[in-house]
Amino acid sequence: MPLSQRHLLGLDGTPKEDIQLILDTATSFREVLERPIKKVPTLQGKTIVNLFFENSTRTRVSFDLAERRLSADVVNFSSDISSVNKGETLKDTIRNIEAMKIDMVVIRHRHAGAAQFLSRVIRSNVINAGDGAHEHPTQALLDMYTLREKFGNLRGLHVCVVGDISHSRVARSNIFGLQAMGARVSVCGPRTLLPRFVESLGVGVYTNLDDAIRDADALNVLRIQLERQESAFLPSIREYHNLFGVTKERLDASGKSVTILHPGPINRDVELSADVADSAHSLILQQVLNGVAVRMAVLYLLGTGH
Amino acid sequence: MPLSQRHLLGLDGTPKEDIQLILDTATSFREVLERPIKKVPTLQGKTIVNLFFENSTRTRVSFDLAERRLSADVVNFSSDISSVNKGETLKDTIRNIEAMKIDMVVIRHRHAGAAQFLSRVIRSNVINAGDGAHEHPTQALLDMYTLREKFGNLRGLHVCVVGDISHSRVARSNIFGLQAMGARVSVCGPRTLLPRFVESLGVGVYTNLDDAIRDADALNVLRIQLERQESAFLPSIREYHNLFGVTKERLDASGKSVTILHPGPINRDVELSADVADSAHSLILQQVLNGVAVRMAVLYLLGTGH
Amino acid sequence: MPLSQRHLLGLDGTPKEDIQLILDTATSFREVLERPIKKVPTLQGKTIVNLFFENSTRTRVSFDLAERRLSADVVNFSSDISSVNKGETLKDTIRNIEAMKIDMVVIRHRHAGAAQFLSRVIRSNVINAGDGAHEHPTQALLDMYTLREKFGNLRGLHVCVVGDISHSRVARSNIFGLQAMGARVSVCGPRTLLPRFVESLGVGVYTNLDDAIRDADALNVLRIQLERQESAFLPSIREYHNLFGVTKERLDASGKSVTILHPGPINRDVELSADVADSAHSLILQQVLNGVAVRMAVLYLLGTGH
Repeated sequence: MPLSQRHLLGLDGTPKEDIQLILDTATSFREVLERPIKKVPTLQGKTIVNLFFENSTRTRVSFDLAERRLSADVVNFSSDISSVNKGETLKDTIRNIEAMKIDMVVIRHRHAGAAQFLSRVIRSNVINAGDGAHEHPTQALLDMYTLREKFGNLRGLHVCVVGDISHSRVARSNIFGLQAMGARVSVCGPRTLLPRFVESLGVGVYTNLDDAIRDADALNVLRIQLERQESAFLPSIREYHNLFGVTKERLDASGKSVTILHPGPINRDVELSADVADSAHSLILQQVLNGVAVRMAVLYLLGTGH
Repeated sequence: MPLSQRHLLGLDGTPKEDIQLILDTATSFREVLERPIKKVPTLQGKTIVNLFFENSTRTRVSFDLAERRLSADVVNFSSDISSVNKGETLKDTIRNIEAMKIDMVVIRHRHAGAAQFLSRVIRSNVINAGDGAHEHPTQALLDMYTLREKFGNLRGLHVCVVGDISHSRVARSNIFGLQAMGARVSVCGPRTLLPRFVESLGVGVYTNLDDAIRDADALNVLRIQLERQESAFLPSIREYHNLFGVTKERLDASGKSVTILHPGPINRDVELSADVADSAHSLILQQVLNGVAVRMAVLYLLGTGH
Repeated sequence: MPLSQRHLLGLDGTPKEDIQLILDTATSFREVLERPIKKVPTLQGKTIVNLFFENSTRTRVSFDLAERRLSADVVNFSSDISSVNKGETLKDTIRNIEAMKIDMVVIRHRHAGAAQFLSRVIRSNVINAGDGAHEHPTQALLDMYTLREKFGNLRGLHVCVVGDISHSRVARSNIFGLQAMGARVSVCGPRTLLPRFVESLGVGVYTNLDDAIRDADALNVLRIQLERQESAFLPSIREYHNLFGVTKERLDASGKSVTILHPGPINRDVELSADVADSAHSLILQQVLNGVAVRMAVLYLLGTGH
């Protein structure tokens, strides 16, 4: 049974069956990554364009590797937003690139909705690699893959997303995806960084991190954008660390084991202390590895119509 | 019969037979681009270096795709001119890169003559991807390919190039190439943007766009460099649009059908109105696609000595 | 017999047998570079990441070509140091990239010890492409290869490194490598640019270039960093040229033939006059070509465990 969609724009509305298929397919690619020759000919002769209008090392390299390991031809196109600052121009840029007969586009853009817009004006398969504060579906899929690998099943698992929920596409995609898979999702952060009416998404809300640690099986700790401090959303960084930093002391005091995820890059000793990041509780490096497998799965499923 | 030249530096002096061979070869590659696997092994093991000393997304991506689809190994080298600001240093840079045993160099440079200079100091095949206001031969070849596809033949066709003729390498390459193929070429623009003695190139001159539309079979509308406005070459952008903007009203008023080309990227509603750019008269996206095929043809013919 | 080390961090302590094996292996790859198809399938399916935290065109392109010609998958990651300015963050960046299952890392960094640090925190093979003023082993290996090609043997050869010895990783790697191979090494430069106690490295010291030319079989002329002038290490550039510039007049006056190497890029008519750089004494372009072969050899030996 193929995916129900031609694009991967977000997990909001993506059916459970699609997520299941992606995670199961990723398992096969995860095995490929353990081989001496980590390459399959699946997308040979297909051209994939990575359109990164926002800086990103990890996500770009992860997609790049996933594409090459599927034997696709890869064209990288990076640009800061300044040179492509109107929707009209974005459309022209994209239609021009598509006219060169490409098969798939991976797009990162600082504007929410950019991937969806793209999917309406071109015929290629579109994968959203992060659009503003909207969605970052492959990140949530790799988070879910990593949790499933650890816990065997997502159903009934309680995952708490900690940090700046208001501005986080990672938080949103995690909420939609985990809920579709039957997990219980909550969020934790200072009131100023929680979206109003966040409860309407069906998530629990914590403003005290110790309470969240007590209840959750896993914490998905978000990176704090240090520049938020200036915008008055955040008290001082030190204050944030004191109240919402995930530290060894705090975890030890909870008297239980909590699994730690982080989308990276980490601000060590801000939202996550270095000892926790490097501890056995942390699945951060597994996330990175699984990210390549999950992206190979998405590219494979969309690119071959399976 | 192979090409008469080892490099493609410009269309000035390029014989009709060479142009014909490139366009005919491009037809085969145009078919390759319609296949599910748009790749041929023709240049496997050959190394092509793209030396872009001037910003360019479209042309660079187009060459990049053409090279990969011929299975060549591609090395991209981009640099703004500031770090390579002396002819002596350009020569050293280039001879060093060539010493690594490369086969072909594609160069874009803001100085007229850079490609020719390069062809005299290295042994690799050189393709000019735009040198100052001098030539941009692959652009003109793709324009001709697109016109031939539309009209069946270039002989006797009247093509008018509209805009800033003085500073345009696209205009110059179009004039030389189209004339070699027996087309009739004219130019249209404000006097300040027409080269003195332009008539000596054998082209007709219009300073009234409606007259040009009345006479021509196709308009090749150049991008207006918005920064020219400050340099006093151009009246205001609004004024330019009023006098030389190709609009639906103007085309409708002409009572005839005119084909529209544009090398991109378009300043929508400046030199070309959005509705015309997106209309059935416009071959702009076909140009982009044909660009890949034409570049594959040039790379193939020079790279294999056919 | 395989290499005695899993990484190539420097030539200080690298045994003669390793150097010999690399140079001998490079001879085979040097032949590959003369073939029409300059490519072997040796590292197919292996992923190599080029981490360049410092600007470099030549070395990056040389490694890139070497990797592609071994059929490896290549991921390029360039960054100025500003975005990766703490050891902690460098570690995170690198461990994240390694988590994606890469096989080898080529690193250039402005901090001495960066490659060694890297080799302690990751499992991939690490190749130092230049770390601060510490080492640049592949440069020294290509210098040695080029000298061996010219003179047949390194034993007993007298090589004098001329220029800013204090700040040069090229000088250091040459000294260690050449001495291991039984060559005699000396240095020549103004006192301010010679490291204190340089004699303790077992090298001869010249502060007069004519004396060095009289005694040496080959000069390895270093690039003068023009910005050193401001830091008071250097008298004026003109003064430097007058005292330490390798010119045709000076070579002619010596009445003997001296071979010239230079790691590039040359400041023509500063440390090396243009006529000497382009003369038959100069092996500069051979160095560039041999660099690709030597890097192929290092990548092959480390990547296959031979």
